[in-house]
Amino acid sequence: MEVRLLEVPDPVLPGPHGVIVTVERTAICGSDLHLYHDAPTGLGIRLGHEAIGTVAEAGASVRTLSVGDRVLVSGVIGCGLCAPCVAGQPNLCRAGQSAAFGTMADLPGGQAEAMAVPFADAFALPIPDGVTDEEAVLLTDILPTGYAGAERAAIRPGSTVVVVGLGPVGIMALQCAKLYGPARILAVDMVPERLARAERLGAEPIDARIAPGSQQVLEATSGWGADSVIEAVGADATVLDALSCASTGGTVSVVGVNLAMALPFPMGLVFLKSLTVRAIFAPVPGTWSALVPLVQAGKFSLAETFTHHMGLSQVAEAYQLFDSRADGVLKVLLDPKA
Amino acid sequence: MEVRLLEVPDPVLPGPHGVIVTVERTAICGSDLHLYHDAPTGLGIRLGHEAIGTVAEAGASVRTLSVGDRVLVSGVIGCGLCAPCVAGQPNLCRAGQSAAFGTMADLPGGQAEAMAVPFADAFALPIPDGVTDEEAVLLTDILPTGYAGAERAAIRPGSTVVVVGLGPVGIMALQCAKLYGPARILAVDMVPERLARAERLGAEPIDARIAPGSQQVLEATSGWGADSVIEAVGADATVLDALSCASTGGTVSVVGVNLAMALPFPMGLVFLKSLTVRAIFAPVPGTWSALVPLVQAGKFSLAETFTHHMGLSQVAEAYQLFDSRADGVLKVLLDPKA
Amino acid sequence: MEVRLLEVPDPVLPGPHGVIVTVERTAICGSDLHLYHDAPTGLGIRLGHEAIGTVAEAGASVRTLSVGDRVLVSGVIGCGLCAPCVAGQPNLCRAGQSAAFGTMADLPGGQAEAMAVPFADAFALPIPDGVTDEEAVLLTDILPTGYAGAERAAIRPGSTVVVVGLGPVGIMALQCAKLYGPARILAVDMVPERLARAERLGAEPIDARIAPGSQQVLEATSGWGADSVIEAVGADATVLDALSCASTGGTVSVVGVNLAMALPFPMGLVFLKSLTVRAIFAPVPGTWSALVPLVQAGKFSLAETFTHHMGLSQVAEAYQLFDSRADGVLKVLLDPKA
Amino acid sequence: MEVRLLEVPDPVLPGPHGVIVTVERTAICGSDLHLYHDAPTGLGIRLGHEAIGTVAEAGASVRTLSVGDRVLVSGVIGCGLCAPCVAGQPNLCRAGQSAAFGTMADLPGGQAEAMAVPFADAFALPIPDGVTDEEAVLLTDILPTGYAGAERAAIRPGSTVVVVGLGPVGIMALQCAKLYGPARILAVDMVPERLARAERLGAEPIDARIAPGSQQVLEATSGWGADSVIEAVGADATVLDALSCASTGGTVSVVGVNLAMALPFPMGLVFLKSLTVRAIFAPVPGTWSALVPLVQAGKFSLAETFTHHMGLSQVAEAYQLFDSRADGVLKVLLDPKA
Repeated sequence: MEVRLLEVPDPVLPGPHGVIVTVERTAICGSDLHLYHDAPTGLGIRLGHEAIGTVAEAGASVRTLSVGDRVLVSGVIGCGLCAPCVAGQPNLCRAGQSAAFGTMADLPGGQAEAMAVPFADAFALPIPDGVTDEEAVLLTDILPTGYAGAERAAIRPGSTVVVVGLGPVGIMALQCAKLYGPARILAVDMVPERLARAERLGAEPIDARIAPGSQQVLEATSGWGADSVIEAVGADATVLDALSCASTGGTVSVVGVNLAMALPFPMGLVFLKSLTVRAIFAPVPGTWSALVPLVQAGKFSLAETFTHHMGLSQVAEAYQLFDSRADGVLKVLLDPKA
Repeated sequence: MEVRLLEVPDPVLPGPHGVIVTVERTAICGSDLHLYHDAPTGLGIRLGHEAIGTVAEAGASVRTLSVGDRVLVSGVIGCGLCAPCVAGQPNLCRAGQSAAFGTMADLPGGQAEAMAVPFADAFALPIPDGVTDEEAVLLTDILPTGYAGAERAAIRPGSTVVVVGLGPVGIMALQCAKLYGPARILAVDMVPERLARAERLGAEPIDARIAPGSQQVLEATSGWGADSVIEAVGADATVLDALSCASTGGTVSVVGVNLAMALPFPMGLVFLKSLTVRAIFAPVPGTWSALVPLVQAGKFSLAETFTHHMGLSQVAEAYQLFDSRADGVLKVLLDPKA
Repeated sequence: MEVRLLEVPDPVLPGPHGVIVTVERTAICGSDLHLYHDAPTGLGIRLGHEAIGTVAEAGASVRTLSVGDRVLVSGVIGCGLCAPCVAGQPNLCRAGQSAAFGTMADLPGGQAEAMAVPFADAFALPIPDGVTDEEAVLLTDILPTGYAGAERAAIRPGSTVVVVGLGPVGIMALQCAKLYGPARILAVDMVPERLARAERLGAEPIDARIAPGSQQVLEATSGWGADSVIEAVGADATVLDALSCASTGGTVSVVGVNLAMALPFPMGLVFLKSLTVRAIFAPVPGTWSALVPLVQAGKFSLAETFTHHMGLSQVAEAYQLFDSRADGVLKVLLDPKA
Repeated sequence: MEVRLLEVPDPVLPGPHGVIVTVERTAICGSDLHLYHDAPTGLGIRLGHEAIGTVAEAGASVRTLSVGDRVLVSGVIGCGLCAPCVAGQPNLCRAGQSAAFGTMADLPGGQAEAMAVPFADAFALPIPDGVTDEEAVLLTDILPTGYAGAERAAIRPGSTVVVVGLGPVGIMALQCAKLYGPARILAVDMVPERLARAERLGAEPIDARIAPGSQQVLEATSGWGADSVIEAVGADATVLDALSCASTGGTVSVVGVNLAMALPFPMGLVFLKSLTVRAIFAPVPGTWSALVPLVQAGKFSLAETFTHHMGLSQVAEAYQLFDSRADGVLKVLLDPKA
């Protein structure tokens, strides 16, 4: 689709449990590129599921937020009423209403001056003390996504972990993998700068331009493979290569968005190696109780995540730049006022 | 391959940690049918990985077994020395030597008068008091396999479980699923007698001749699907249907043997539903500490598993009969002396 | 304290997130006897934390309940706003406001014609289809309590479990223990009828009038003890005896209410046997997603729990009767209209 | 007891599965001080359960070790035959034979020139590449003990952890706690140097000379307490203070040796706060698969653990020094040849 900045009507309060947020910072996510590349123009989708701002209006039934509160908004929401939704897992919404903001016409996103947030007690959080605005934006989606991927990768103290793909989500996943005490993290990518960043974070870089990542992982592990593999790209080839990285008894946790319905899958390998393969649509709010104190304690290196700061008026260029994955480009932060 | 009874040399003691077992009862497993159908004749494979008998000879270093002990033999073995092997998980053998008896020429199986068992402290168990011979045979492979499948299916109290395939392994898996407190078990097959057996065991039968299992599972669960699905067939179609049975957040545990290397896999479904998919090559000895007290306490209905008792001299007919999956045929027990 | 029926003012709506429930059935809990025996008369406590009824009035912000809905009310509540409270674990309330209805003057209980329920979306549930009124009353406290005790007892398939105390909570715990696949349940009490009830439920009765429960448990387990012990009395002596029942590596889960601050505790035993000891104040609403489908599927034997049905007008006699623990008395159901 | 160096007969091979190890380095453990203070002289106990050396003689049935191999020896052993023993958990020995070397007359310890190790395949490990001798000594007991304590403390990403006692085991526990991703570690002791060491390792020091540790922990956590508490002293007062440090829903994991049989225990607190309390006798060999790769990867700061190197001939002085807990004294390494 073509990305354009348009004048649209102001959002209206989505019922008594919702709020309107004046957006102050928003970001482009790798998953936005799926729409950018594959969706037709004209669907009326207002993009964006990573946003922070100030509550401008609050429904009468909202309990935990007030007008004037600065909040971060979960990129993923659900019905807001079922047990998983209220417990922070809208990805498991029992009403089947899991969705990311900005992915369909009737759920306008946060790359905007304002956004409507339904059931805000469940899906928005006052920005906690000691959390910067950039960190708050990361808490709306990609840090929770990386965390969910690491959490489901069955990493134990002493494990060997592989992270396939060192874009923004991969870098979050890599840092979250460290929370589980691995002995080694092998980090696979093709962009030198991304490999260097991973190495600074304590990982062993594997340059997939030289040979397939899985081949190098097997060499680095005496042929045994890795206990835990986190896939953070979503391409068919990287998902399949991730499976080949896993050791007998290992787990492959896919956080890259792959929507293939007929991926040529090595079930025989999964059987003979007793593997576990899983993917996840991020349970954003449910991760905050773990992630917020870690961010506050400075346990992550997040400062260099946003390599570019631009105005929302430059959104078309921002998408082009982000999509280039050029050296020096990791993630773009947008200011709706600029 | 053609199955024939041949006169072969007696097995020799496989080192000081091994034993020779005079086989008293042995059985045909569904996984033997893979070889029966697909392997060429002439490989010299001596079939069988389900056997019990008496220790006829014991190596000098064997600690827990003596000549004269009646034992059951793990269908799956490994190097016998690594940490997983000694802890009962030869499927995770660090030396990469996981194998089932009777699947290759140099590991002769138990459909024979005698068999050699290496590292017998790890891979054989004196038949415990209160365990019948038929139950002991089931403990060599299919009850552990069904148990491993259920254990890895993430069944919790109140869950809805689907078992796809009600052959011998499926019936074991169904009974093991009950150990985890599900509210409902939906049991899918096409053979009326098998469906009736599942119903007697407390499951809700789903006849896949009427409509695809997954379609009926969704209808029976208001469109939500099942928390846990155990696939116990191994065909491409049943593995794929099992994936369609799973609810958002669900787990699909495959114990049917599927060796496809390019199964057309719905990765998009796995992502959007946050699924976990896993398979396992059975960790036989590691399951005995749980399964033996349950068998002793009569917690399983195992008596009707062996529908046919035949002599090893009739082995060719026995394979034909077992392969027919005819009504009235569930599993065949063989007596090497008859 | 003395228990009397008094005329009191009608409850008022506890804020916009609360409801008023007209009570239709209520029950006396073993924990009420702590107050009955130990609290002075005159505190103004309105007893009762097990009640069901109909929503008579609902605050404007209530989302999941309407006037006229028949509901069951969690016996335990909290602030209603923190993450544990909204996720069904008011026992872990971050605001430190965990409390049971009817245990203090400013949280009037359910042994009444009507009760106020704050934050009703979190703490009340429409009575699900297929759940009888008696079952609904059990879901307000003692079935969740028994379940929580079993859940935290680390029961695994094949385990040996001991339940100490076969009063109402013990009988619930015993049935919940079965959800985890134990091979054996040893049930300890001194009342013949209670022992007989446990035996009908599949347990091995141990009559503690003959010898201490732990002594008989050790005899029944070849001196090894039980993997999991659930204490459902709360007396000092039974808590200590429960610790003596545990095997090396075992877990003792205390659901009996014991408020001792200097129990003479065998720490040396806990160390040498690598034990885990835990207690829990019941996380009622968080258990419903598991327990409701189990009740609907008829997995529990609950029909004979209420041995006596009386009118609220007979509440003083009801307490006396329940407190007697006489043969034939297990639990008393009260009708506020009679 | 009085500690003296005596000439004793050489050890003899403890059966065909055992080895004789020529001891090269050995250490004094805090738990040795229990005997030092409390056991009468004349029991004939040969002390020591932390030793490394070279295999001088190997029984015929030993599979994984050869004469000349340099090995580290598990401080804790069991029968060597049961399932927990072969799986690395001699603390859970089914034969009830869990014991530490050097704690009774018939299991002579490693503060000697040589020691007999029964069932050496289970209880000794060739010193892995990249592991120094000092690290190997730490792997015989206190690093596994600290790890077991942390593993059982239910630490999750974002947790707040307290470590009570910063002696050698406490320092190991503190470093192992970091493997589970806590946001904060509060470290309690009374010795300035020990507090400074903890701070260098990333913890927040709490000086218990100023006020009780629990009081300061509550202040540092807004009154809420810590999710996980590891007690590494073993005194009655510190165990009780550790309980007071725990938040609602928290876990207290005791690794300090406390053999009290009537500790005045706040069961009411455990109930009202839904706490878990556990202790453990270390499962040494079972921890090696996690700890060895972590040591090899340099994930621990172990170099400054041994503050003193002495000859075994100075053993009496070494005990006095170690017992002093003076500033500058953390742990003593002994050389049997000096």
